[in-house]
Amino acid sequence: MAAARQYLKLDHPFPMRRGGVLQQVQLAYETWGALSPTRDNAVLIFTGLSPSAHAASSAQDCSPGWWEDMVGPGRAIDTNRFFVVCINSLGSVFGSTSPASINPQTGEPYRLSFPILTVEDIARGGYEVIRSLKINQLHTVIGPSLGGMTVLAFAALFPDATRNLISISGAARSTPFTIALRSLQREMIRKDPAWQEGKYSANAIPVEGMRLARKLGMITYRSAKEWLQRFGRERASVEHKPDDPFGIDFEIEAYLENHAAKFVGQFDPNAYLYLSRAMDLFDLADHGEGSLSEALRRFKIKNALIIGVETDLLFPIEQQKELFDGLTSADRNVKLARLNSLQGHDSFLVDMDQFRPVIGDFLRELA
Amino acid sequence: MAAARQYLKLDHPFPMRRGGVLQQVQLAYETWGALSPTRDNAVLIFTGLSPSAHAASSAQDCSPGWWEDMVGPGRAIDTNRFFVVCINSLGSVFGSTSPASINPQTGEPYRLSFPILTVEDIARGGYEVIRSLKINQLHTVIGPSLGGMTVLAFAALFPDATRNLISISGAARSTPFTIALRSLQREMIRKDPAWQEGKYSANAIPVEGMRLARKLGMITYRSAKEWLQRFGRERASVEHKPDDPFGIDFEIEAYLENHAAKFVGQFDPNAYLYLSRAMDLFDLADHGEGSLSEALRRFKIKNALIIGVETDLLFPIEQQKELFDGLTSADRNVKLARLNSLQGHDSFLVDMDQFRPVIGDFLRELA
Repeated sequence: MAAARQYLKLDHPFPMRRGGVLQQVQLAYETWGALSPTRDNAVLIFTGLSPSAHAASSAQDCSPGWWEDMVGPGRAIDTNRFFVVCINSLGSVFGSTSPASINPQTGEPYRLSFPILTVEDIARGGYEVIRSLKINQLHTVIGPSLGGMTVLAFAALFPDATRNLISISGAARSTPFTIALRSLQREMIRKDPAWQEGKYSANAIPVEGMRLARKLGMITYRSAKEWLQRFGRERASVEHKPDDPFGIDFEIEAYLENHAAKFVGQFDPNAYLYLSRAMDLFDLADHGEGSLSEALRRFKIKNALIIGVETDLLFPIEQQKELFDGLTSADRNVKLARLNSLQGHDSFLVDMDQFRPVIGDFLRELA
Repeated sequence: MAAARQYLKLDHPFPMRRGGVLQQVQLAYETWGALSPTRDNAVLIFTGLSPSAHAASSAQDCSPGWWEDMVGPGRAIDTNRFFVVCINSLGSVFGSTSPASINPQTGEPYRLSFPILTVEDIARGGYEVIRSLKINQLHTVIGPSLGGMTVLAFAALFPDATRNLISISGAARSTPFTIALRSLQREMIRKDPAWQEGKYSANAIPVEGMRLARKLGMITYRSAKEWLQRFGRERASVEHKPDDPFGIDFEIEAYLENHAAKFVGQFDPNAYLYLSRAMDLFDLADHGEGSLSEALRRFKIKNALIIGVETDLLFPIEQQKELFDGLTSADRNVKLARLNSLQGHDSFLVDMDQFRPVIGDFLRELA
């Protein structure tokens, strides 16, 4: 299943931005298409919080990827034209070094001894991969959600490493509202007695905490409007146990229950905690001596596409507008796409009819 | 402290809407002002989910009430003019019969043997109180949030019992988004091992579940915009323990922690579960053979004021607009006040400068 997955094993230490150094870091990635002789056609994809590097199917792994409709021959991110790399974020669990990995210095999993993870560390992981592939400069770096933040960190840390960027449903920083929601998700996991201060065993993970956190995520990733259209006040088809006065009444409750159950077991709880907090801690202004506009002014990119969705609760459209305004003031060629998708923050995974042309046109116009 | 509290003890059974009958029901309430000789100047207030009947201070209880700035001599709900009654909802814990009360038939607390609670049952509790006070018809019935739903149930069940109504940040029904949030809050409590299927003891309540549920409530009661203005990315002043990588980083996290801790212990978890679910189950269309407009057409009120807040996440302004449109079609004299308060669903407790004149003017114009 992960036959398309490649690994970069670093032979040098990986210093973490907020302190601590990782040894023998491993980074998982997948690629599609061919690198041009001048090595100038590479597109690097950073992911949201939970996906793996398997953005799309390939000859080595025919299972559909998380962005299957976006990446492929003739698709918006056209693998006939581009050499596409998708990386599994540092700290995530699909092949890259994470809190669930064995610390080579102790022979035990890192768990909470993993250093604080930042979005910048994830960006540096991507940089290591493209350097190992002998790519000096990307054509474009692109990412949604956490990935939309990571492309900003990438452009700030490695200003010569990309000519263009696409930030989707990302932001220069998290709002207090979003921080509060993520903080509460983390607390749900940490307050689950099974969490055991991160020392849970593999067959006794904090299932209830993860399930609650996932449900809150799902509620906030979408929009109230979409759910009204999809669910209305439909009653659940599952039987409501008569002795359980707080069982499932509504279809929306059954939907959340089913999807949360699927997620649990696929993602390591400690890794989730680290990645979630990384999103809270990120502030692009840190790269401009406290000034966001200064940080954006230091970007060396030629063209940028900023995509936002009007129904996004977590990264509201004003935040993408802020990026657009800052890059415009810095005289960068920047386009803002305000999409009216119904699916909120998750739209980039779902509303392909709106996202494909915006991304496809941007990349084609740069040809 | 509860010296102003009065009690109505019913000497007849109280049939619950979804089945079951309560015996020896008690309803707590407070009153302000004097009933006119013709008994036509009474205003009944239904509360949101968590407050007691202590809406305002009085000679008997000088502690400030939850709507202190709204109710009193010369205030918007003018106790020089009106005889004001505020009721503690059936199912709530401040003097009214609730799941925490002793079931007279068993001598044990009801806990989960309490029948399903509906908004209509709460409305009927209010009706019992005004009948006991020999009031045939209210001047106005008013309530915010859950109370904003309860006034609708009241007007549907007892069409001759009020001439006017004011529904604040209420709705004819809950959206799937809001149901999902409430369902998750209930699950947080129910998944706390201390909940014990509702059989927790008084000194070992599900504190963690209540704290999480309250935090989610607080996040959604307000608006992202308000928090951005209030908190920005301010770091918490409390020291972050170096051995706790998931402690409090931001002021918003400290704020939620402090407020959630205050709430826990003040409210019985089972009562919270019942009241929360009552809000999910309510659908005004049930009173119009499945048609909301028919239900509203059957109201016999003369004048209505519907108040909504543009930043309300839980009862979005479209829901108040829906009530306004339905009452307008039914040829009722109805006014819609769309307030641009920043404080979201909670605005009626906070943004007095906007709420007072709207409510005060409406009541004065009916004089």
